[in-house]
Amino acid sequence: MGHTLSELASRLGLPMHGSDTVIQGVAGLEKAGPQDLSFLAGAKYAPLLKTSRAGAVILQQEYLDGVGSALISTNPYLDFTRALRLFATPQGCLTGQSDMAYIHPESSVDDSVTVYPFVFIGKDAQVGKGSTLFSGVYVGENCRIGERVVLYPNVVLMSGTSIGNDVIVHPGTVLGSDGFGYTPCATGLEKMPQVGNLRIDDQVEIGANAAIDRATLGTTHIGAGTKIDNLVQIGHNVEVGAHCILVSQVGVAGSSKLGNRVTLAGQVGIADHLQLGDDCRVGAKSGVNRSLQGGRDYLGSPAVEAKKFMRIAASWNRLPEMGKRLAALEKELALLKTQLSEEENEQQ
Amino acid sequence: MGHTLSELASRLGLPMHGSDTVIQGVAGLEKAGPQDLSFLAGAKYAPLLKTSRAGAVILQQEYLDGVGSALISTNPYLDFTRALRLFATPQGCLTGQSDMAYIHPESSVDDSVTVYPFVFIGKDAQVGKGSTLFSGVYVGENCRIGERVVLYPNVVLMSGTSIGNDVIVHPGTVLGSDGFGYTPCATGLEKMPQVGNLRIDDQVEIGANAAIDRATLGTTHIGAGTKIDNLVQIGHNVEVGAHCILVSQVGVAGSSKLGNRVTLAGQVGIADHLQLGDDCRVGAKSGVNRSLQGGRDYLGSPAVEAKKFMRIAASWNRLPEMGKRLAALEKELALLKTQLSEEENEQQ
Amino acid sequence: MGHTLSELASRLGLPMHGSDTVIQGVAGLEKAGPQDLSFLAGAKYAPLLKTSRAGAVILQQEYLDGVGSALISTNPYLDFTRALRLFATPQGCLTGQSDMAYIHPESSVDDSVTVYPFVFIGKDAQVGKGSTLFSGVYVGENCRIGERVVLYPNVVLMSGTSIGNDVIVHPGTVLGSDGFGYTPCATGLEKMPQVGNLRIDDQVEIGANAAIDRATLGTTHIGAGTKIDNLVQIGHNVEVGAHCILVSQVGVAGSSKLGNRVTLAGQVGIADHLQLGDDCRVGAKSGVNRSLQGGRDYLGSPAVEAKKFMRIAASWNRLPEMGKRLAALEKELALLKTQLSEEENEQQ
Repeated sequence: MGHTLSELASRLGLPMHGSDTVIQGVAGLEKAGPQDLSFLAGAKYAPLLKTSRAGAVILQQEYLDGVGSALISTNPYLDFTRALRLFATPQGCLTGQSDMAYIHPESSVDDSVTVYPFVFIGKDAQVGKGSTLFSGVYVGENCRIGERVVLYPNVVLMSGTSIGNDVIVHPGTVLGSDGFGYTPCATGLEKMPQVGNLRIDDQVEIGANAAIDRATLGTTHIGAGTKIDNLVQIGHNVEVGAHCILVSQVGVAGSSKLGNRVTLAGQVGIADHLQLGDDCRVGAKSGVNRSLQGGRDYLGSPAVEAKKFMRIAASWNRLPEMGKRLAALEKELALLKTQLSEEENEQQ
Repeated sequence: MGHTLSELASRLGLPMHGSDTVIQGVAGLEKAGPQDLSFLAGAKYAPLLKTSRAGAVILQQEYLDGVGSALISTNPYLDFTRALRLFATPQGCLTGQSDMAYIHPESSVDDSVTVYPFVFIGKDAQVGKGSTLFSGVYVGENCRIGERVVLYPNVVLMSGTSIGNDVIVHPGTVLGSDGFGYTPCATGLEKMPQVGNLRIDDQVEIGANAAIDRATLGTTHIGAGTKIDNLVQIGHNVEVGAHCILVSQVGVAGSSKLGNRVTLAGQVGIADHLQLGDDCRVGAKSGVNRSLQGGRDYLGSPAVEAKKFMRIAASWNRLPEMGKRLAALEKELALLKTQLSEEENEQQ
Repeated sequence: MGHTLSELASRLGLPMHGSDTVIQGVAGLEKAGPQDLSFLAGAKYAPLLKTSRAGAVILQQEYLDGVGSALISTNPYLDFTRALRLFATPQGCLTGQSDMAYIHPESSVDDSVTVYPFVFIGKDAQVGKGSTLFSGVYVGENCRIGERVVLYPNVVLMSGTSIGNDVIVHPGTVLGSDGFGYTPCATGLEKMPQVGNLRIDDQVEIGANAAIDRATLGTTHIGAGTKIDNLVQIGHNVEVGAHCILVSQVGVAGSSKLGNRVTLAGQVGIADHLQLGDDCRVGAKSGVNRSLQGGRDYLGSPAVEAKKFMRIAASWNRLPEMGKRLAALEKELALLKTQLSEEENEQQ
C-alpha cells in the first residue's frame, strides 16, 4: 500500500519539495512517523512542524522553511483528503454473489454487483454496476439502485425507493419507511396509507441508523451531493436540496423544503411545512418553527438570527441580576416619590 | 387496481355527484390527473378546485359548485384517508414460510404467517394468524405476536415481548431490550438485571429505528392505538396510555406514565418518574421535568404552559433592549436624585 | 430457579433474619408475593413494609422491627441488584455455531462461542471464549472481540473495531461506521476517508440502535466500565473515559474528550473538540458549547453551572411581568420628571 512521495505529488498534481521518500500511511502531525504523510491546516498548528516526525507534510508555500520533504498546496486540507483516498482500504472481504443471499428471480442485478450472505433483493428491483450490498441488506420490490452504490450491513430500502449513482448508506439506516400520518376518527386514529416514495440523487451519503420516510403522495427527495449524518430523521414529503449537510440527530418534519447548501448542525429540529432558503445555516440544537431566509445563520429554540441569539443568551446570564436591579429601582423610585411628597407637604 | 367512482362511493358510503368515471390512483389537487381521485380539506385550498385536473374530488357539499365528479363528505380528509386504503399496495413480494428462515422447532407459528428469508423465531415463541415477518426479523424466546401483525425488516423482539393484534412495526426497531439501570459500587457500576418484559396492545404502530426497553421488574406497557414515530426512545417501566401520539426522536425516561391521548411533538424529552395526564400535549423540543396536568398544552425547556412560554419567548427577543432600558432608567434616576439633592442644597 | 433464603444469604454474604423460606422470584414491595424477595431502598418506602406480602425483604437493620424474613444489608439497593442476578435468565435459546451463519475461513472463532443463524464473521476477525453473537450480527474484517462478549441481534461492527471482555451491545447498534467528514471543493463536498478505528474497553455496555463512529485518523475510544444508552451518537475521534454514563439520545460531536465518571443525561449534545473534566455531570437536554471543568453540575443550552441555570429559568417565568414592571417604571419616572419640571416652572 506504500507510495513514493514523488508518485503522490504526481497523482495529486502538487509540486514536491525536498528529497523523495516512501510513504506507507497518513497521520496527524503529532502522531505521524517517518513513513507517514501529514498536513498543516493552518497557522495555529505551525509550531508542531518543528517537533513532528512526519516523513512528509502537505502545506502552503509560506510554511516550507526548515521542513524536509513536503508537497506544496494552496489548500492542504483538501489535498490531504485526496491523499487519504490513496491509502484508504474499502470495507469488506467478499466479492461475487453469495448463494446464502435471496435474490428474487424477477429482479435485475448486474453481474458486477457484490451481494453478501443474508441480503434480500425483492421482485422487480434493479441494482446497477459495481454496487455492493453487505450482509442483512433488504431491497424491497421495485427499488432502483444506481451504479457504484454501497449499502452497508442491515440497510433497509422499502418498496419503490430509488437511489442514484455513487451513493453510500451506512449500517442500519432505513429508507422509504411509512411517513407518520393519521387522521382522527371516532375510534381513535386512522392510518393514512403512505403510497408515495423516496428518491435519493447521486453522491448522497447517509450515516448509520438514520430514517428517511417515503411520501404520503408524491416523493420525498434528497438532492445530489447532500451528506446526512447518523440518527437523522427526515419526514414524509420533505425535499432536501443539493449539497446540504445534516449533522447527527437532526429531525426534519413532514413537507418541509430545504434549499441547496443548507447546513443543519447536530440535534436541530425543523417543524413541518417550512421553507429554508439556499445557504442558510442553523446552529446546533436549534428548534426552527418558521421559514428561514437563505444565506443567514440561525440559532436558538425558537431559532432567531444567530447574532441576535448570542445577545439573548448573554442577557440570560444577567437575568437574575437584572431582576434585582429592577426591584432596587422600584424601591428607590418609590422612596424618592415619598420623599418628594413629604417635602411638598412640608412646603404647603 | 382501478375502481369506478360509483364503486368508491358505495364502499366509502358517500353520495356521488356528477358522472361516473374510472379512478386509477390518488393525488393532491395540484398534481392529480383525469384518472385520479383528490380531496379538498378546507376553504384555504378551494381556489385550486378551478385549475385542478382531478377526475373526481372528495369535498364538502358547500364546495360542489362548478365541480364535475365528486364524492360528498362531511370529513373529506378522513374519507380520503379511507379511499387511500383502497389504492395502497401492501409492501412485500413473498408468501409462505421461507426455508432460508430459522424457525425453532418448539415455536408455534400459524400456517397463514408469512416468514421471509433470514427471519429467526426462538423457542416457545408464538406468531398469530395472518402476520408477516420480513427479512432479518428476530423474535426471541417466549415472545407472543398476535394476528395480522406486520414486522418490517430487521425488527428485533427480545425475549418475552408480547404484541397484540394489528400492530405494525417499521424496520430496525428494537423492542424489549434491557433498560438502562446500574447501581454504583466500589468497582464502578453494577448492572441491574432487567428481568421484566414489554407488552404492546392492539393497533399500535411504531416507526423505524425506535427503541422500547423491557421493565426492570414488571412490565413496560404501550396502550392500544398508540402511534410512535421513528427514532423514539421509551425507557424501562414506562407506561403509555391508549391513542397517544409520540412524534419522531421523542425520549421518555424510565417509569414515567402517560395518560390516554397524550401528544408529544418531535424531540420532546420527558424525565423519569413523571405523570402526564390524559389529553395533554407537549410542543416540539420541550423538556419536561415535572408531572403535567391533563388537557393542557405545554412548551419550552423546562416546559411550562404553552401560552406562558409564548410570552416568555417573546420577552427573550426584547431582552437585550430591556437591558439597555434598565441601564437608562438607572442612569436617569441617579441623575434626577443628584439634581434634586443639588436643588435642596441650593434651597437650604 | 428457586433458592432458599438461607442460600441467598450465604451467596450474598448477608445475615438472615427470621425463618427460612423458598424464594422463586423478585419484585417491588407493592407487587411482591409470598415467594418473592423484595427490598427497602429508603425511609420513604418504609410504610410499604407493613402491607407488603413479600416472602422476604433486603433491608437495613433499623427497619427490621415487625418484619418476618429478611436479609440485613448496609446497601439494600446494591444487594438487591446482586440478588437479581441469581434470578435473571440470560437471553437466547441456542448454543453452538449455526451452519446458517457465514464464518469466513480465515477468521478465528473460539469453539465456545455461540453463533446464531445469519451471523456474518469476516476475514481475520477474532472472537474470544464464551462470547455470543445473535442473529443478524455483522463482524467486519480485522475485528477483535474479547471474551464473554454479548452482541445482540443485528449489531454491526465495521472493519477493525476492537472490543474488550465482558462487553454487552444491544440490538441494532452500529460500531465503527465512518465519521462525518467532508472538505468543501469546487464541485461540492469531498469525502474525507475515515481510515482510523474504534476501540471499546472491558465491561462497557451499549444500548440499542446507538452509533459510534471510527476515527478519521487514529482511534475513537470508549473507556472501561462506561455505560451508553439507546440511540446515543458518538462522533469520530471522540474519547470517553472510564465509568461514564451516557443516557439515551445523547450526542457527542467529533474529537471531544470526556474524563472519567462523566454523566450526560438524556438528549444532551456536546459540540466538537471540547474537554469535559472528570466527574462532571450535565443535566438533560443541555447543549454544551465550551469545555467544562470536572466535578461540577451543568444545565441549559448553552450550558452553564446548574445552580445558575436554575436561577435563570426562574427568571424566565418572571420575564413577561418584568417587562411590564420596566414599562411602568419608565412611565412613572417620566411622569415624576414632568411634575418636577412643572413645579420648577411654577416656582420660577
